Amino acid sequence: MTFKYLLADRTVNMKASAIREALKVLMRPGMISLAGGLPAPESFPVDLIEEICTKVLRKYSTQALQYGPTEGFPPLREAVVGLLAERGIDVTADRVIITTGSQGSLDSLGKILISKGDPVAVEAPTYMGALSAFNPYEPSYISIATDDNGVIPEELDNLLRKTSVKFVYLIPTFQNPSGRTTTLERRQQVAEIITRHNALLVEDDPYSALRFRGEALPTIKSMAPDNVVYLTTFSKIMAPGLRLGICAAPPDIQNWMVLANQGINLHTSTFDQAIASEYLAGGYLKRQLPKIVEVYRPKLLAMLEALDKYFPDSFRWSRPDGGMFVWAEGPDGFNADDYYMPAVESGVAFVSGQYFYTRPGDGLNTMRLNFTNADVPTIHRGVRILAEVLKSKPVSVGK
Amino acid sequence: MTFKYLLADRTVNMKASAIREALKVLMRPGMISLAGGLPAPESFPVDLIEEICTKVLRKYSTQALQYGPTEGFPPLREAVVGLLAERGIDVTADRVIITTGSQGSLDSLGKILISKGDPVAVEAPTYMGALSAFNPYEPSYISIATDDNGVIPEELDNLLRKTSVKFVYLIPTFQNPSGRTTTLERRQQVAEIITRHNALLVEDDPYSALRFRGEALPTIKSMAPDNVVYLTTFSKIMAPGLRLGICAAPPDIQNWMVLANQGINLHTSTFDQAIASEYLAGGYLKRQLPKIVEVYRPKLLAMLEALDKYFPDSFRWSRPDGGMFVWAEGPDGFNADDYYMPAVESGVAFVSGQYFYTRPGDGLNTMRLNFTNADVPTIHRGVRILAEVLKSKPVSVGK
Repeated sequence: MTFKYLLADRTVNMKASAIREALKVLMRPGMISLAGGLPAPESFPVDLIEEICTKVLRKYSTQALQYGPTEGFPPLREAVVGLLAERGIDVTADRVIITTGSQGSLDSLGKILISKGDPVAVEAPTYMGALSAFNPYEPSYISIATDDNGVIPEELDNLLRKTSVKFVYLIPTFQNPSGRTTTLERRQQVAEIITRHNALLVEDDPYSALRFRGEALPTIKSMAPDNVVYLTTFSKIMAPGLRLGICAAPPDIQNWMVLANQGINLHTSTFDQAIASEYLAGGYLKRQLPKIVEVYRPKLLAMLEALDKYFPDSFRWSRPDGGMFVWAEGPDGFNADDYYMPAVESGVAFVSGQYFYTRPGDGLNTMRLNFTNADVPTIHRGVRILAEVLKSKPVSVGK
Repeated sequence: MTFKYLLADRTVNMKASAIREALKVLMRPGMISLAGGLPAPESFPVDLIEEICTKVLRKYSTQALQYGPTEGFPPLREAVVGLLAERGIDVTADRVIITTGSQGSLDSLGKILISKGDPVAVEAPTYMGALSAFNPYEPSYISIATDDNGVIPEELDNLLRKTSVKFVYLIPTFQNPSGRTTTLERRQQVAEIITRHNALLVEDDPYSALRFRGEALPTIKSMAPDNVVYLTTFSKIMAPGLRLGICAAPPDIQNWMVLANQGINLHTSTFDQAIASEYLAGGYLKRQLPKIVEVYRPKLLAMLEALDKYFPDSFRWSRPDGGMFVWAEGPDGFNADDYYMPAVESGVAFVSGQYFYTRPGDGLNTMRLNFTNADVPTIHRGVRILAEVLKSKPVSVGK
């Protein structure tokens, strides 16, 4: 029996994430994964969480287990104010909401803003999870060109002159998938352009706390507070399994998101929110974050060193100061997908960059390499094996 | 500045839940609430959860904090198989998914099944949260008449003869808001009707474990396994703040729900799922459930006793064997809304039943009374005060 005849029109737009499908091969024993986007488990504060659970249950008792406001657990909304202030975002607790991961914010933004066919502007390449959130609402995507310095402001300005988009979606810092960071000057230009057009920018910022070297850059939200929906998450600074996102949005956008979230899940787990509030307010993040950074720094350096040593001369790659990903580009005519199965058969997995583009045929020569989940020797070995596969196999074979 | 011009068409269908708005008065000091739907905090296993947190972090360590499969944390999917078997639902772990509350299942069902204008059949009255989940997908609702014995099978059959609905949504046991339970004979008839029409039934069952007297009735899922999406939740048997729903659906419906949930929130909190898996597998539920029932039984009895003693003769009300709500009906011409503010001014709050109907003007003479959140003397006093308000004020005043 099938119920296919009952499906809504939008459901044809839902596809299994290519990454999630690709990740199935990762279950093979001995597979080296440069493919996923999993944080390093050794960065998770298991002992602190155990301590915090006890603290939270004694402090809040049944309140930590009860239904709560859709907007978020009040002590957590209070606690994130300081975190946002460090990023130049000046808001009070009532101007922040907590969602079920950043993904939860992306879904409710799509829900309240996108009617079928509405234009939404995204970087090329962009985060696949954002596309999964928006796709069911049937937008039409417009790609904004990017280069090593992030999104190209002139391209954004030209786009907004011609088209009234519902919103612009950017990841300015250590972008997923490209690892690129939009420069300070470009951030200022983007802020000016967005404000001048009275457009709405969704600034997704999961990675900025994972900076291993160099100076922090101000958020675009800090430069255009009235026009930016700022998203960040506990996934990279505490643990992703608790599914906690933070959203600071213009007031009416926040109000509609809250209405949408009432229907989506009533609210985000009170208990997880209580844990996160104590993680911030109790000073645990301050203790843990340097440890997280120290887990990742050698991994990034190992990947860059191995790329320098082994990768073909015809390739170039990003050299991020943080985040989780390096972006590699092959020569013209190279198609990363042709090398996926040979690489897997040699014991190493990556993600073809084309899946991060909204326009079919774009980015065929690109690959995303994750450096957070494997250990240093494994990263080294993985890049070496991958380089051998890339060198041994002529570009034309397999097409 | 407003971004109203950016809103999607569907967003006009999102309204703040009337209950949530009504609940704002509950913050007033001394207010007796018969309005909300909050479980009794004294039923929450605070100490057990503390013990389980430690256990889970030692057993699963970082795995309890990592990203997980959209379908659910594998040990929890295993653990709920036994819970479902007790309800006559014979499924393996791969045929169950975990969602962010039952609300999360309702949202993804709406998302995958409802295109604008699609007919969805609901009981009159029905659960407001389900309407909040479905409304953004812009269904047209068809009401199915109910009486003291639950949904009327002949009405359902007539409806399905005439109209191909996307799905039928029922709460057969201790319904919210009416407290009514669909009889065994009617369950069998509903199962036969749904199967004969090859229709899809969403059987929402949050309350059946909260049975204070009488014999458990089999689920409709157990009688029509291929045509029923069965939903239940940890909200009433553990704690609602953890937002954990269980869904056993036909295979293709499950697959599409999982695709939708990838975009909605990636997955439900791994940590909360790990806690729930231990709550079931470690035998904690077996210890706790009788205590929960004993918390509620005297509250229900106190409410029924007070209604018998104080309520006007012109009223009738449901006499549930469990759940969280009693449903009171006034005489023809009585409008519960006229009594809401006078009752609040006298210090007691309830919910007007009309908000649980999809057709404006239906159910004006009805009220939902919650008996789980207040203590026994307060329930007694609340009903007494409410009865005085209902008696003192002529029906026509305030219109």
